[in-house]
Order: sequence, then C-alpha cells, then structure tokens
Amino acid sequence: MHVVVNAAMSADGKLSSRRREQVRISGSADFTRVDRLRADNDAILVGVGTVLADDPHLTLDDEELRDRRRERDDDPNPARVVVDSTGRTPLDARILDDAAETYLLTSQSISDERRRDLEAAGATALAAGTGRVDLESALSELEADGIRALMIEGGGEIIYSLFAAGLVDELSVYVGSLVIGGRDAPTLVDGDGFEERFPSLSLRATTRIGDGVLLEYDVDGR
Amino acid sequence: MHVVVNAAMSADGKLSSRRREQVRISGSADFTRVDRLRADNDAILVGVGTVLADDPHLTLDDEELRDRRRERDDDPNPARVVVDSTGRTPLDARILDDAAETYLLTSQSISDERRRDLEAAGATALAAGTGRVDLESALSELEADGIRALMIEGGGEIIYSLFAAGLVDELSVYVGSLVIGGRDAPTLVDGDGFEERFPSLSLRATTRIGDGVLLEYDVDGR
Repeated sequence: MHVVVNAAMSADGKLSSRRREQVRISGSADFTRVDRLRADNDAILVGVGTVLADDPHLTLDDEELRDRRRERDDDPNPARVVVDSTGRTPLDARILDDAAETYLLTSQSISDERRRDLEAAGATALAAGTGRVDLESALSELEADGIRALMIEGGGEIIYSLFAAGLVDELSVYVGSLVIGGRDAPTLVDGDGFEERFPSLSLRATTRIGDGVLLEYDVDGR
Repeated sequence: MHVVVNAAMSADGKLSSRRREQVRISGSADFTRVDRLRADNDAILVGVGTVLADDPHLTLDDEELRDRRRERDDDPNPARVVVDSTGRTPLDARILDDAAETYLLTSQSISDERRRDLEAAGATALAAGTGRVDLESALSELEADGIRALMIEGGGEIIYSLFAAGLVDELSVYVGSLVIGGRDAPTLVDGDGFEERFPSLSLRATTRIGDGVLLEYDVDGR
C-alpha cells in the first residue's frame, strides 16, 4: 500500500490554534490540489480527534473528479477511514453518511454494542490490536479490501503513529504564510515524538501555490 | 530597529526533540548563510532558555567576516543579547565571555546582588518591565545604544513574545528534511500562541540549500 500524508500548516508547523479551532491556512488553489489528490487515492484516513474536532465529510468537491472516477469503474468518492480505538466516532458524524464507504479501524477493546451501533450507522468496523489500533495489520486489512493508495489528512497524533510505525511513503505539506504559535497548539507531527533515529525525508519539489508554498517529500528508506 | 528572526526547524516545525537536545536540522551550507546573516546584524538575541539548554557562544565562525566588520569600524563580532527576566544566565555561560559585548535584558524584579554578579561576569544589564521584560522598551534601549539591526535566534518562547509585541520585521526559516515530532517538543513559535489575528506573512523567497529549503518572509504591516 502506498501512503501519502497531506496537510496544511502555518509557517511555524501548527495545524490549528491551541483552541483547536480550524484556521484558514491555505486558499482555493490549494483546495483544488487537495481535491485532486483525494480523487487519486482509494481512501482518505483521519484520526478520531479530527472527526470530533472538525466533523469532516472527506468527499470530493468537484463533480468532474467524481465522474472521472466513475468512468474508471471506481466509487465516485474515495473510501473514508477513521482510526478510532474505542469507537468514539459520533453516530451522526458526517463521515458516516452514505456518500462513500467508511471504515473504522478499532482495537479489540471496543464493546460489541458500540461496534454494532457504528455498523448500523454505516461503518465497516475492522478490529486490530489490543488497547490501541495495530496500524500495520489494520492497513493490511484495508489493502486486502482493495485499498492500494491511502491519503492521510491528520491530525498530528495519527500522523506521528504512522511515521513511528514506518508506514509513510510521502509527505506533502502546504506551508501557509501566517504564524499561529502556541506550545499547546496541534502540530503536523505530535504524539510522543522521536528522540533519535528521526525519519529522514528527501525534498522532491517546492511549489508556490497561492500565498504559500507546497513542500513535497519522499520518506527515505521506503 | 530592524528585527529578523532566523531559525532552523524540522519539516513539522520543531526546533529540537522533546528532550530539548540539539538535533542537526541544517548542514554546512546553511551554517555559512547564518554566519553571514549574523555578521550583517549589530546584535544576536536569544532567550535565557536557549542559554540554559545550549550554552551558545553566538560569535562568528568565519574570521574573514570579522575582518570585514573591523574594516567598517564595527566590533569584530556582533553584540549578544539575552532576554532573562530574573537573571538566570549562569555566570560561566559562554555568552558572557569577552569575545563580544553582551546585554542582558532583565525585568525590574532581578535582585541587585544578581545584577551586580552578572555585570561583574561581563554583562551589561538593562532593566525594563516588572515581572516580565518589556520587550518594546528594552529594544528601544538597545537601539539608543547603536543597535539598529537585530537578529533573533530563538527559542520559540522569545520568538512568540516578539511576534505578540509586533516587533518582528522578517522571518527566515530553514526547513530541514526530517521529522522530529512530539506534542511537547519545542516549536518555532511557542508561548501561549495566537487565537485570532494571526500574524500574516509575505513569502519573499524560497531557496533550496543543502537537503532542505530556506523560506524567507516579510511580516505584513511592518
């Protein structure tokens, strides 16, 4: 499976303010690029923190992109994937609507009742790992279900977990021309962080888009 | 006074790991650029956190740059400035040696005894503000002493305070091709962070240097 992380951050590496409210970091030119990147992937993955904070829909904006996917016999929208160990995704989350298939990657600690409720609300629940989701085996299950290209849209906790598990192939980060600041504000890669053997990247391209710049990296050793 | 912030961060906006150990983010090509930028400024400012963590010397590496400063009747090295409300700079800190002039910007809460000890160790102490340093008036005092161009080398706490006070004219950030991660790792701009009216930047240049990229911004409204 090919995994690309895509995110927009401020010039100081923040995904939003310390209040965790969405901040407009990129503009319409970058939204168009992200929509195309979504259309090129089989599924879009977020952590449950992002679902709880932003209630994203994660479908394509551009109808033409859906048409092109239909022409090649794909579902009109990519599948949606939530990493959600204990099933905290609200039953009325937009991500559970029927605009696209939705997978919940849970751990085995999820209760049978919660699992049934989430499946009744439209999710396909895959359990891997005790306590926390075992990302490597969960992604293997997705791949067995036909998902070969996976796009990660954050937040910083799940992005860290994926880097720590050595599962990321590419990183695309749009650097917006603003400062957010804050020692407690969410950053592109949060989690516990690395203390040594920092994941090394190769800068493939820098492209000015709108007021900011897109930095595209390959992850070394992948 | 013209104020430029210069720093090297990982692709996810971190200045070092959560252990606050120095991480090699840039390489020799960027060190050369930073040395030249230091030589072009009248003083280099850091927060006391950086002094305590890294014990930096903040002098020029390249003897030729010192010669050029001598030719224009400048001191061979730029002055050094530590923002240090209560005088926590160790008396044997490298920044207090006689390679260059050193200012300590303190608040009025520093004890007379500590102030005398620091001055005996080689510092010029300037007091501005009660409790915390009043940066605007402290920088005015520096300017009255002939410092017209000031370079800020971090850390994230002092960089936030300077942005919050509206004192930054330019931001130069070298983005190294690695991931550090960590919700508790120091970032380019820490402090309390902004919640609205985020400082807006204009991207002046993007330049590949070594394995990474230098992003140069003007701060809007300055």
